[in-house]
Amino acid sequence: MHRVRETTPLAQSFTNFVTINLVANAQLAAGGTAAMSFLPDDVIETAKIAGANYINVGTLLPFYKDALPEIAQRLNYLDKPWVLDPVAAGIGRTRTSILQAFKAAPPTVIRANASEVIALANMWGLNTESAGDASEHRPAGVESVDDVDSATGAAVALARYLTEQHAKHSSHDASIPCAVAVSGIADLVTDGETVYRLSGGSSMMTKITGAGCSLGGVVATYLAVSDPLTAALSASLLYNRAGEVADTTSHGPGSFQVAFLDALWNVTAEQVAESEILVQ
Amino acid sequence: MHRVRETTPLAQSFTNFVTINLVANAQLAAGGTAAMSFLPDDVIETAKIAGANYINVGTLLPFYKDALPEIAQRLNYLDKPWVLDPVAAGIGRTRTSILQAFKAAPPTVIRANASEVIALANMWGLNTESAGDASEHRPAGVESVDDVDSATGAAVALARYLTEQHAKHSSHDASIPCAVAVSGIADLVTDGETVYRLSGGSSMMTKITGAGCSLGGVVATYLAVSDPLTAALSASLLYNRAGEVADTTSHGPGSFQVAFLDALWNVTAEQVAESEILVQ
Amino acid sequence: MHRVRETTPLAQSFTNFVTINLVANAQLAAGGTAAMSFLPDDVIETAKIAGANYINVGTLLPFYKDALPEIAQRLNYLDKPWVLDPVAAGIGRTRTSILQAFKAAPPTVIRANASEVIALANMWGLNTESAGDASEHRPAGVESVDDVDSATGAAVALARYLTEQHAKHSSHDASIPCAVAVSGIADLVTDGETVYRLSGGSSMMTKITGAGCSLGGVVATYLAVSDPLTAALSASLLYNRAGEVADTTSHGPGSFQVAFLDALWNVTAEQVAESEILVQ
Repeated sequence: MHRVRETTPLAQSFTNFVTINLVANAQLAAGGTAAMSFLPDDVIETAKIAGANYINVGTLLPFYKDALPEIAQRLNYLDKPWVLDPVAAGIGRTRTSILQAFKAAPPTVIRANASEVIALANMWGLNTESAGDASEHRPAGVESVDDVDSATGAAVALARYLTEQHAKHSSHDASIPCAVAVSGIADLVTDGETVYRLSGGSSMMTKITGAGCSLGGVVATYLAVSDPLTAALSASLLYNRAGEVADTTSHGPGSFQVAFLDALWNVTAEQVAESEILVQ
Repeated sequence: MHRVRETTPLAQSFTNFVTINLVANAQLAAGGTAAMSFLPDDVIETAKIAGANYINVGTLLPFYKDALPEIAQRLNYLDKPWVLDPVAAGIGRTRTSILQAFKAAPPTVIRANASEVIALANMWGLNTESAGDASEHRPAGVESVDDVDSATGAAVALARYLTEQHAKHSSHDASIPCAVAVSGIADLVTDGETVYRLSGGSSMMTKITGAGCSLGGVVATYLAVSDPLTAALSASLLYNRAGEVADTTSHGPGSFQVAFLDALWNVTAEQVAESEILVQ
Repeated sequence: MHRVRETTPLAQSFTNFVTINLVANAQLAAGGTAAMSFLPDDVIETAKIAGANYINVGTLLPFYKDALPEIAQRLNYLDKPWVLDPVAAGIGRTRTSILQAFKAAPPTVIRANASEVIALANMWGLNTESAGDASEHRPAGVESVDDVDSATGAAVALARYLTEQHAKHSSHDASIPCAVAVSGIADLVTDGETVYRLSGGSSMMTKITGAGCSLGGVVATYLAVSDPLTAALSASLLYNRAGEVADTTSHGPGSFQVAFLDALWNVTAEQVAESEILVQ
């Protein structure tokens, strides 16, 4: 947190139109800077000056089908770390085709809800636990129909897969593990070896649009200055502490969002460091 | 209102980029859930799990010209109820081509301003009253240049047309009438038989962008759990009551929007039920 | 300011998806009305009823490459005044191709940060001062890496070029100069003859996304009722005064944005008129 606030790192986002403004404002409130791009030439040129990148597959347009796999491939070829939010994984042929293509050019961190994590693990053939009936685990639109516990196996499998793939293809130190963050009542963050559970936050975070999307953006902001696990843990903890502050000072979803952005700005690194983390 | 808050129904939106965030946040604040899509495969697959859908024709992109008529046709083929906001009806060849195509695959509810309702009725050949000079009734951009009274005939004609068409083609009970809601100083809602007038709200609703667009989204949220007339009336009444609350607690358009979202969350079904409705 | 608040002029925007909502809300809060369009037929038909137009080249989509040059050409052919925000000038082949095309169909006002102004002047072959190494002046994403002082020569050269071109091709009075506004710690506004420097504002304006983008929109709102220099000066001064008010009444970037929109609505023409302006 200190490093982000001191260096205001740039994290670039290719994200959905619903919450694109909140993603940028959350990144700024957390202490970073933001740039949003959609054209492959824009994304790749901006990636060269950005510390990390974020891809969120909500609100697809026709040209994304080719653009997103190309961007993922080029980010990985350039060894640029990136965060994926596989919004609504399992819904729509185009989204499925894009998410399947990411298997060969995987992200550094995945941030999603439980249903999306399970759907993505199934799609990539990694989820041996619940292989029985993948169709049970399709999200209800953008909302999760599964609880975080039930996504533990899928999250661990995905984190291991990301780490393996980056060790194979990356010039980075192969010992840096990738990470998966599953948002829910008690968030789960894992590097494929240890599973961390983070409680707190506010139920109002489900009554504004983009709490999850913007968390993905802030994970990218942290990823610009730290390893994947630290980025996923820090951003998730900041979100929980900020959610609690906003909960006590707001009177509905409108004032909650305002108070939440203020809290992202005002919560201290010390408050985040004092968070309780359950190691499973 | 009780049913929405108890069941948090999903209403899907294909809407403009200016107010897409407010549409989603208003649907959440009213008690529903939101999903936004643009690709036909996304929209149709999400429609299968959504209670209702919303199409708003602001900020068109090139691919909408084919996508929107296809989506309307498939929603109707699948008997999925949907709300249309014909933003800026009358402006631009592409918008006109899309709105004309909707005549053959019409929505369940139309929510618009007076100029848009008149322009759409003219476009569909339904507005016998003012057939003299259709070009007089083109909106000044996205703002209405006509008052609500002058749109009464067009609104009634549109509501009857929607009801007739759905009775012909739908497997639903043919006795459920469709509805048209015209926003203005005193809103008008009609099922083609009775004309209801709803007063109140706040003049500040014209000083934030998206009061009308997001009302269309909340009509869709209510349409997910009720008949078209009830959905149009309830959402319009909620908006007027919430506008009044926000008016008294805000100091300009910034704080008005925040207070308005809080009020959508906090206004009770009883407050809405006590609203005065003028039956014309 | 009085004229805008009395006549609520329409300014149309073709702008990026990150801050499109703030652009519209800022235009409404300043007293104008807003319409956002992307299709050439929409933009041109709306331009016929709008007082001024705004083009912002953030978040490009593939079809913009042809659409934006066509729109600029048609706006100029129709003698419609427009404001350009050359967001991230210098990044990406598509953006460069679009901005180069604008040289032949230039805007009436440019509103940008220092790096973008320098990059654009270099791109158009106008910046003799720093011709040595254009690559030094590429913006760090959407943030400026140059200070306002260093953009003075580029801003003056651009303003003169715009004025010359419009004098050649326009049917307007050739004596009306165009303007360039460079945002930074002390803003710079010039008509190519006089350089005005405007201090004040708030450092929090860099901690919300879209302060610059929405200023471009409000310049267009003012341009609908005044000459380019007056529009650029008035909008920039309003932004500084509103930023100061919001600074004292907010507790972080969330409440700053809310207070800022309120202040755009509440700051008086007299407060703006009392602003100190340094003439260089």
